[in-house]
Amino acid sequence: MKMPNKPLSKEKERFIEQLGERRLIETIVNKFNANANRRIVTVGAGEDDCAVIDIDSASGGRKYLVVTTDTVQESTHLPKGISPFQIGWTVAAVNLSDIAAMGAHPFAFTVAMGVPARTRSAFVEEVVEGIEKCASAYHTAVVGGDVTRSKEVILTGTCFGFADRPVRRAGAEIGDLVCVTGSLGNAALGINLIKRGTELKVPVKVEEIAKKALFQPVPRIQEGIALADSGLVTSMIDISDGLALSLAELAKSSGVGFEVYEDKVPVLSEELRSAETFDLSSIGVERRALAFYGGDYELLFTIDASGLERISETIKMSVIGKVTPHEAGIYFKKGEEKEKMELTGYQHF
Amino acid sequence: MKMPNKPLSKEKERFIEQLGERRLIETIVNKFNANANRRIVTVGAGEDDCAVIDIDSASGGRKYLVVTTDTVQESTHLPKGISPFQIGWTVAAVNLSDIAAMGAHPFAFTVAMGVPARTRSAFVEEVVEGIEKCASAYHTAVVGGDVTRSKEVILTGTCFGFADRPVRRAGAEIGDLVCVTGSLGNAALGINLIKRGTELKVPVKVEEIAKKALFQPVPRIQEGIALADSGLVTSMIDISDGLALSLAELAKSSGVGFEVYEDKVPVLSEELRSAETFDLSSIGVERRALAFYGGDYELLFTIDASGLERISETIKMSVIGKVTPHEAGIYFKKGEEKEKMELTGYQHF
Repeated sequence: MKMPNKPLSKEKERFIEQLGERRLIETIVNKFNANANRRIVTVGAGEDDCAVIDIDSASGGRKYLVVTTDTVQESTHLPKGISPFQIGWTVAAVNLSDIAAMGAHPFAFTVAMGVPARTRSAFVEEVVEGIEKCASAYHTAVVGGDVTRSKEVILTGTCFGFADRPVRRAGAEIGDLVCVTGSLGNAALGINLIKRGTELKVPVKVEEIAKKALFQPVPRIQEGIALADSGLVTSMIDISDGLALSLAELAKSSGVGFEVYEDKVPVLSEELRSAETFDLSSIGVERRALAFYGGDYELLFTIDASGLERISETIKMSVIGKVTPHEAGIYFKKGEEKEKMELTGYQHF
Repeated sequence: MKMPNKPLSKEKERFIEQLGERRLIETIVNKFNANANRRIVTVGAGEDDCAVIDIDSASGGRKYLVVTTDTVQESTHLPKGISPFQIGWTVAAVNLSDIAAMGAHPFAFTVAMGVPARTRSAFVEEVVEGIEKCASAYHTAVVGGDVTRSKEVILTGTCFGFADRPVRRAGAEIGDLVCVTGSLGNAALGINLIKRGTELKVPVKVEEIAKKALFQPVPRIQEGIALADSGLVTSMIDISDGLALSLAELAKSSGVGFEVYEDKVPVLSEELRSAETFDLSSIGVERRALAFYGGDYELLFTIDASGLERISETIKMSVIGKVTPHEAGIYFKKGEEKEKMELTGYQHF
């Protein structure tokens, strides 16, 4: 785990094993309870055996509770160069992204942190700051947690939301349009730049933007809610393991196939594409690899074609294909050419 | 991590890295969704980006959602000799115990599992079986999870309950009676037996019972609910880090002190005490160490003295002391002698 590079004050230069569990928890709890969305929280983090939330005021009368849990840890998930703040941000963001993919309103988050005993307390404080900032940005209260001594840094988040019409992975109908929010491949470019280090020559600004996309993902909460509220979305998933695998999941759940217009997939953000004279081919990175096989936290969804105008007025999105019969499988389409999509992406084992 | 000793069939003799993430998840999800309390679950484990729970049918009209999260892992929490089934049971039980300590009705559980790539798939299946069995025993549905590759076995559970009157740690009044459910020190005896190995000569039955108390703790869900429903409990906490530390937490939250009648603390279960001719002193284990400094998952609570008869008719409990002013601190009392209680117990750092 990379420690903060900036010099730490003497006060902060201590390991958590010296601080002791109870003082460590106090520091964390103060941070979470100071800024959190306290309106709905009757009992907050560290205040009792459990957190307590008033259902009526938190749910706003919505019918369903939605729940997700996701872990990030040092040896598998954390790219080289990520800051402690960004590690904290990431564990909140990846969970919020699953809430977004149901079109739900997030309201609470819990986090269990495993950290080695010889971790600087400033490191933990910055991780906590990152969690709090990301949760707060989406009106989500951090209501509870746990800290344990472990062999590596490992953070498990659990996020709760409310929804009236949770949008499922099942529901896509033949003829529906296939769409994505935002742009894809930004984080994957970041991974490429890190893996190939100084060998790649890219503008500083490109490096900054791509790494930020990788280190500090943005969950599409507002977009998810707008899509669910529209009533026009037939299925939805987030693109955490790459577009190809997400298409495969949606195809399996909905019992359909997909035809994807490769050229329509929005690769790299406007900001990245316009950064000086940056050109993908000059660094030997394939557009297709970025578009289909890198994880982003955009939403992949299907809509009835009649809803296109209304939805595209509400959120920034691109139509990238259409829903076909299940037997047709999942294909790239480039002009009249069709090519079967390779279904790979990130897997832990 | 200890692997199951019994010979595994060829079919089961494979590592999860060979099985692959998706097949592993399928196995887990099938187990959770087959036996779980599906009535309230609209979307279960592995079926979508999030689990979805119908609030009305799950809450039974109760006003508060209570949430807790707790981790167990190999290097810190898992005693030598615990089976994979019991590891799974434990992660569910320790979380359910926090729900019990609020007097809440548990209804859902999520679990994030970190496992090394070279873990036998049978090991994971048995852990999952343990989680499912414990959750089911308390009418709790396992609604979601996550599996990641990690350096050691690490399981984070998050448990949800509903309550109308969550019982807080704050609320004990001077003059209230201090009580515990069940008996203490059973798990601590198990730890003693493991640490000192063959050097200790105790009856086989004693070893079996003490180790089971340690390896497969029983959350006091029914007792917690009965206590909350009685309306006579003024404060409550579970005794996961030992009675001494739990008393200290309750004292701090309620702003009171405690006088504890050392001889009234129920040490060791009836079953253990009556096991052949077993005698603590013969193995050099101090009664006080078992009673105050070992973790159990019993409940510690305070009641108005007028409620004693009604409560002791409902659940198995013992009065162990009384609530005193905060300035008086926390004391043992033996006859007329008073002795300040040492406030130590389990801490991670």
